[in-house]
Amino acid sequence: MPAKLGPDRSRGYIIAAGALADAARAADTFTRLLALLAPQPRVVIVASGEAADGDDSELESLLRAAGAAETMRVLLRTRADSEQLALLAAIDQAQLVLLQTDQPLRLSTLIGGTRLARALRRRNAEGMAVAGCGPAAALLCEHMVAHGEQGATPRQGGVQFAPGLGLTNRVVIDQGGHAGDRLGRLLGALALNPFALGLGIDAATAAIIGPDNVLEVLGAGGITLLDPAEMAESNVADVTPGAPIRITNLRLHALTAGARYDLDFRQSL
Amino acid sequence: MPAKLGPDRSRGYIIAAGALADAARAADTFTRLLALLAPQPRVVIVASGEAADGDDSELESLLRAAGAAETMRVLLRTRADSEQLALLAAIDQAQLVLLQTDQPLRLSTLIGGTRLARALRRRNAEGMAVAGCGPAAALLCEHMVAHGEQGATPRQGGVQFAPGLGLTNRVVIDQGGHAGDRLGRLLGALALNPFALGLGIDAATAAIIGPDNVLEVLGAGGITLLDPAEMAESNVADVTPGAPIRITNLRLHALTAGARYDLDFRQSL
Repeated sequence: MPAKLGPDRSRGYIIAAGALADAARAADTFTRLLALLAPQPRVVIVASGEAADGDDSELESLLRAAGAAETMRVLLRTRADSEQLALLAAIDQAQLVLLQTDQPLRLSTLIGGTRLARALRRRNAEGMAVAGCGPAAALLCEHMVAHGEQGATPRQGGVQFAPGLGLTNRVVIDQGGHAGDRLGRLLGALALNPFALGLGIDAATAAIIGPDNVLEVLGAGGITLLDPAEMAESNVADVTPGAPIRITNLRLHALTAGARYDLDFRQSL
Repeated sequence: MPAKLGPDRSRGYIIAAGALADAARAADTFTRLLALLAPQPRVVIVASGEAADGDDSELESLLRAAGAAETMRVLLRTRADSEQLALLAAIDQAQLVLLQTDQPLRLSTLIGGTRLARALRRRNAEGMAVAGCGPAAALLCEHMVAHGEQGATPRQGGVQFAPGLGLTNRVVIDQGGHAGDRLGRLLGALALNPFALGLGIDAATAAIIGPDNVLEVLGAGGITLLDPAEMAESNVADVTPGAPIRITNLRLHALTAGARYDLDFRQSL
């Protein structure tokens, strides 16, 4: 669960970004994103797995070009790496932590239950922004989509959840990060978790969740928002593994840069 | 426009089926489909382009195994082929015409404005079933999705319409026929045609539209139904080519075998 906010503090931004594959297209998104933070912010990149999103130093260059004063990148290989005092000290001084991974479960199992996970939750509650890029975006959620199958139709067993970092329980984020066929995974996730909104994000595009739980879209692409509040029917509890799941009466929004959506009241602003 | 129904006649089934790539999985769907028609129905297959759906004689065998008394397959190569008297005579005697093509525009431009197109509309109005499989399913609509891009986000210019056979104006059908990433194409089509419901169909799965405009799902997979009746916002008229389209407040249903949906009243039954 997210740490409690003090009465005079407000939580930091939670930023779910698509894959950064194309640095040139992502540059503008980063500039606008960093402009939301303190001037000349310090940024820590926490990564695991093989860099799925191009050259590592390229990301640091991109962040510096976008206005970051300092950047530091830590590649986690073991859970002990998530207890490093130097990393924890850097996070105490950062305005933004950016998560990167080749798959959500690798990073979540390196972080989960460590001092790093507690520091990220506490610092986010104190006002520090946390961003997840590509597959790492899934980690921001309390219930994280760890694995998901391809296709437009949700199937029994096609989506698997694992505990995420838990900065928000308002959304579940497609772990594909940039994949065009996110529909089946989002529907499968909502069949299991009809409390949350489903969120799928194009490459070079970001969904920024403010302290007021208003989501705003930045970047060149679009995001898919699926709202199960009025879900009428789902047979997820009854069907056999691999069978298609019936799920009716969801609300769908395709949003683009500038769109704002209130996650608490579930309406466009 | 569909031909007018006589007061004592009811229109034939309109059947939108996904790709038939896997004959074994499609066999059960065909058996149930043919059981809806007269006993031992006569079936005419009208095809164009290279067979996208496996061996041609395999389809005829499948239909015979499913209960067809006679099958005939005509491959159209020119518009003159759509004026053949033998073909028109066979359609006058058929209980089902099955359309097949490698892409919707190839078949629609071979048929459009010919005696074959008029015969198919007239015979469907008289009670003959018409099925489109895979990419040919798009042809059943009045406004046919002729081309569409991949991805989950609709983009300006990403979907192109052309006139279809026009058996129904209640739906637009994803021309991918079996593609997992149908969401962006369906949203792009509905941005241009918010009158219709968007329909995407898995392989080995069929949406059967009865004379009462009730749609029923058959087969092993799922279908995606997108209802724009309450669409709140769309910027399709304002954005530049290639830009993502914003479109909010659609209703989405993921349906499976046995599900029934009333296309006139836009509700599950």
